[in-house]
Amino acid sequence: MAGVPRAIGVDLGATNARAAVVDRATGAIVAVRKEPHADRAPEAVAEGVARVVREVASAGGVDLGSCGPVGVGVAGQCLGATGLVMNAPNLGWRDVPLGSLLARTLSVPVRVVNDLSAAAWGEQRFGAARGISDVVLVFVGSGVGSGLILGGRLHEGAWGVGGELGHVKVCPRRPGTRPRLCGCGMAGCLEAYTSGVNVAARVREELAAGAVSAVREMVEGDLSRVSASDVDAAFEKGDAYARELWEEVGDLLGTTIANVVTLLNPARVILGGGMLLGAQNLERIVRRVLSERVSASAAKQLSVERAHLGDDAGVIGAALLGG
Amino acid sequence: MAGVPRAIGVDLGATNARAAVVDRATGAIVAVRKEPHADRAPEAVAEGVARVVREVASAGGVDLGSCGPVGVGVAGQCLGATGLVMNAPNLGWRDVPLGSLLARTLSVPVRVVNDLSAAAWGEQRFGAARGISDVVLVFVGSGVGSGLILGGRLHEGAWGVGGELGHVKVCPRRPGTRPRLCGCGMAGCLEAYTSGVNVAARVREELAAGAVSAVREMVEGDLSRVSASDVDAAFEKGDAYARELWEEVGDLLGTTIANVVTLLNPARVILGGGMLLGAQNLERIVRRVLSERVSASAAKQLSVERAHLGDDAGVIGAALLGG
Repeated sequence: MAGVPRAIGVDLGATNARAAVVDRATGAIVAVRKEPHADRAPEAVAEGVARVVREVASAGGVDLGSCGPVGVGVAGQCLGATGLVMNAPNLGWRDVPLGSLLARTLSVPVRVVNDLSAAAWGEQRFGAARGISDVVLVFVGSGVGSGLILGGRLHEGAWGVGGELGHVKVCPRRPGTRPRLCGCGMAGCLEAYTSGVNVAARVREELAAGAVSAVREMVEGDLSRVSASDVDAAFEKGDAYARELWEEVGDLLGTTIANVVTLLNPARVILGGGMLLGAQNLERIVRRVLSERVSASAAKQLSVERAHLGDDAGVIGAALLGG
Repeated sequence: MAGVPRAIGVDLGATNARAAVVDRATGAIVAVRKEPHADRAPEAVAEGVARVVREVASAGGVDLGSCGPVGVGVAGQCLGATGLVMNAPNLGWRDVPLGSLLARTLSVPVRVVNDLSAAAWGEQRFGAARGISDVVLVFVGSGVGSGLILGGRLHEGAWGVGGELGHVKVCPRRPGTRPRLCGCGMAGCLEAYTSGVNVAARVREELAAGAVSAVREMVEGDLSRVSASDVDAAFEKGDAYARELWEEVGDLLGTTIANVVTLLNPARVILGGGMLLGAQNLERIVRRVLSERVSASAAKQLSVERAHLGDDAGVIGAALLGG
């Protein structure tokens, strides 16, 4: 559909669907519409997505019948070839045939893709890795994951579940640390130690158990308010607890990213996600550990950039992946 | 060169060059010749390779002028696009333009490729992963490395140094273990803990320092004879030292392979190399840890097989990668 100047992408989140008309030549978002989910039943969500797609098509001057497949990014494990969402924890979905539900409602072909794969594609086309063939996007937000572009193509793996960086097993250096349980049900996953949600939970637990840290004053004793940015602010003030925690989290993230680079030899790593980009002291440690632990040969000519497109990367990438 | 029925591949090792004529349709080796290096100077090696290629072409009924590019697998970091061998420790080479040296001597195009990439390609075409698009070959021999086939294509990375599994950084679980120094100059590499050479060196050190193990009797006190197969034999007899060592080595290998599978979602993992395939108790632990630590979604439909083609995988893969 390269002859058609505009494409439609959808970012399907836990609470809403965001659809955009994207200019294929520039990556610019020409029109955007957002709609909250009335409920999370797959049929209801599919109807909502179809509605918002029709609205944005109309607003962006796109004829749905001739614009090519609509791309839909979902935070979950997607079988791209069939449009099946195998597992999307935020939506509480398992084995939902989103592609066919949507295609039936919209009467256009639909391409379902993991949200971080979509974001990596968006950044590679019009963001932090333009024109680069081998790219690893690392996302550290409420969850942890990655999107892989290898040899100029999106790598989704044999069943479409590639890029699950949050679930590689890590071993914290701090002596006496026990493997933390991850939301996926396994122990020792990177996400269990480094995602925004898990770091905040851990700090709450440790402060409740009596740990001494400036974080407690920052949230005025209300531990429910603790977030990664409080830890970063405490680090800034020289707080020992925050320093030790960031060294551990930064070591795990930096070493894991270094290992991915050593294995895959990308030319660019893109760092994204609110947890990482919102905590500059942590980001500095991650970059330092990455540069210290990556193999010398893979480090040559590697560059590490922050994501450029922010929350738009996913919807732009989904639109362009659609077709 | 799909129309030409036979291709020529070379496996360039530390001590000799082995060239074969390979039938493109079956992967069968039609003719093979081997020649030891007189010395390791790049020009001398290139002349030896050219000689053995001419001999094998003649023996295999191949016209060098029309058979297409000759593929050469090298244990080292290769820039496939230019034929430059950036680093081949076994040959003592740095930045050797092997592709152009050979092409000049032979007057045919040459494709230089990492030996494990070549082996992965050979196994994918005619061995343990026929027709499978996403394959990770893991090799544990005197060194540790991998070959990656992703989306049906060889993944060599941005500069051709992808697949360096031996140099991902690992963290041994055994308390008090210090990061071991690797031959690459960095500390904590998988290879430093798990290659045949490094395991044997470690056992020698520990026995010399007084460790109690049946391994000592097996080599009749001559520590210079220690090898991984002695450790495996001692494990078999219930030796506590061997059991502890194999649990540690198996945990590191199994966890690292699990992490690669979680990240890349291949349909098949191929295990190869004398260290791993020659130590069945270690192999069993590696397979157990891999199945315990891989993410549930990437584990679905994954199969783990031993390499089928043995030492021929590299030369077959190199021939077919040539063109």
